[in-house]
Amino acid sequence: MGTHTVFFRNQPRILSTATIAGPKECAGVVGKYVDKGLQDDKFGESTFEKAECKMLTYAIEHAIENGGVERDQVDALVLGDLLNQIISASFAARDFNIPFLGVYGACSTLAEAIALGSTMIDSGYMNYVVAATGSHFSTAERQYRYPLELGCTRPPQSQWTVTGAGGVLLAKEGSPLAVTSATFGKVVDYGITDVNNMGAAMAPAARDTILTHLKETNRSPDYYDLIVTGDLGALGSRILKDLTWEKGVDIGKNHVDCGEIVYNVVEDEFQGGSGAGCSAVVFGSYLCHKLRHGGIRRMLLAATGALLSPISAAQGESIPCICHAVSVEVV
Amino acid sequence: MGTHTVFFRNQPRILSTATIAGPKECAGVVGKYVDKGLQDDKFGESTFEKAECKMLTYAIEHAIENGGVERDQVDALVLGDLLNQIISASFAARDFNIPFLGVYGACSTLAEAIALGSTMIDSGYMNYVVAATGSHFSTAERQYRYPLELGCTRPPQSQWTVTGAGGVLLAKEGSPLAVTSATFGKVVDYGITDVNNMGAAMAPAARDTILTHLKETNRSPDYYDLIVTGDLGALGSRILKDLTWEKGVDIGKNHVDCGEIVYNVVEDEFQGGSGAGCSAVVFGSYLCHKLRHGGIRRMLLAATGALLSPISAAQGESIPCICHAVSVEVV
Repeated sequence: MGTHTVFFRNQPRILSTATIAGPKECAGVVGKYVDKGLQDDKFGESTFEKAECKMLTYAIEHAIENGGVERDQVDALVLGDLLNQIISASFAARDFNIPFLGVYGACSTLAEAIALGSTMIDSGYMNYVVAATGSHFSTAERQYRYPLELGCTRPPQSQWTVTGAGGVLLAKEGSPLAVTSATFGKVVDYGITDVNNMGAAMAPAARDTILTHLKETNRSPDYYDLIVTGDLGALGSRILKDLTWEKGVDIGKNHVDCGEIVYNVVEDEFQGGSGAGCSAVVFGSYLCHKLRHGGIRRMLLAATGALLSPISAAQGESIPCICHAVSVEVV
Repeated sequence: MGTHTVFFRNQPRILSTATIAGPKECAGVVGKYVDKGLQDDKFGESTFEKAECKMLTYAIEHAIENGGVERDQVDALVLGDLLNQIISASFAARDFNIPFLGVYGACSTLAEAIALGSTMIDSGYMNYVVAATGSHFSTAERQYRYPLELGCTRPPQSQWTVTGAGGVLLAKEGSPLAVTSATFGKVVDYGITDVNNMGAAMAPAARDTILTHLKETNRSPDYYDLIVTGDLGALGSRILKDLTWEKGVDIGKNHVDCGEIVYNVVEDEFQGGSGAGCSAVVFGSYLCHKLRHGGIRRMLLAATGALLSPISAAQGESIPCICHAVSVEVV
């Protein structure tokens, strides 16, 4: 094998983004930057699943609109989500007359989708691709954990699934925000079996991909203004810093975790946010704003995913994790 | 939008394949061609899920071995399956120290994975990619339908999920089997709500992608020796022929469906086989043998997928479907 990192010769651009988030999320850092903040986390739908799908549809639709292109110019939708059979993605794609590529990387889905979409554009096969994902607290709780109605107590190491969605419109040109490389992650499993402790489970995967990326690009951490992980949460973020420090790499100065920063007040959320929508909303709103206007010029988005299912956990398996990274630079 | 079809300039090759199938499948047409036929559909494991994962691992491992390359030469595994959170793919990928891209297209997964892998190789980003998928009758039944122990009666329009897995090793050169183009499908939903009638639900998606492919490549159906669909089954295959005929295109002479041919005796299986493993096993064993030795030189593999989940069906939704197609030619 050569490297795990793909270098994009033609530097595909992030032409636009669109984000939507629930009331709890909008009380935090992303509130000022999202395209739409919801008062009602059912978004006028009869079920939470339909609300999740509608948020994703909104993010796709408005990413295209914000980029000033027509729907029929878009060559592909690269979408995924956390629900069984990624139904939010499939049902959202049904509303667009655009080829659909379903992907699954749990909470790493946005980075995987951006990497694949950038590949399609960089190689000249496509002109416009939307990469998008989302999640919903109430659909994730009942699928992965317990019915909300049970009112189960949450352990202190747990995170809170973000209600929100984010879409990124990728294009050949038209924006200073370029996707310059992507590092595809391997599955890493350190034997964690506590399904409430995703941060600890995912931190080794984040370390693996971040260190691989830095090595293969011959960069030190300070090349980046920000090294952003998806949703390790407060505890996982601390573990990641320790794990990379053990390998002689100090990311402490410029590392930030979307899960750790998404909620202002860490109260019910304990370690912070999680879910595919976490990095999608924080990256698409707050972080892209920083890239466009905030003096941040180089960012590594390393989104992590825990690839378990309730069945794998029930059958005694530990939690395999992954992290895909894309570097986004103002050029 | 230009076209939905990507033309591969450098014609990435199918260097090798590997397949494994259960006892019921090996009694049929693929029995002579699979790398391994199982006597025991639990493959020595304690659960059907673990058996499914082990079959997928076998297919990946032996595709690499059959191609005569080393594991560490492989740049990526593009994998998916039908289980919630594609755990067979994720857990199989855990055993390889190779970057992993999770995809989900239900039973269209193999074609989606081959298309993405071919893109990676054609564009020069990667040298070797494994595309693989699989399914298991007993895991699919309990996830999508009823526990086996209930002994539910199956309606006559139903299909039988194939127990098996198939892997394809893609490379720049080294084989006369080339992937020459890929047509990515859109989500098509004709409003079918009968979750036992997948063939009828998926046939319109197959028509859409096949007709798009023929139009964009400026080919008539007789360009291909075989137009192969994934798992429409006997009824779905007949519907597809009618639907394309209505549009003035006659594929009757050279259309064959993997689901229709996988079982010799259509008895319990009614309309034939289905599942992500259906096209993976039939293509990887019997059809690739025909391409290598049987006088078949041009094949369109149009794998179909029904993108529903038990939850979407329970919430009253119809069945959104997709079909991705790749053309495989002896060059």
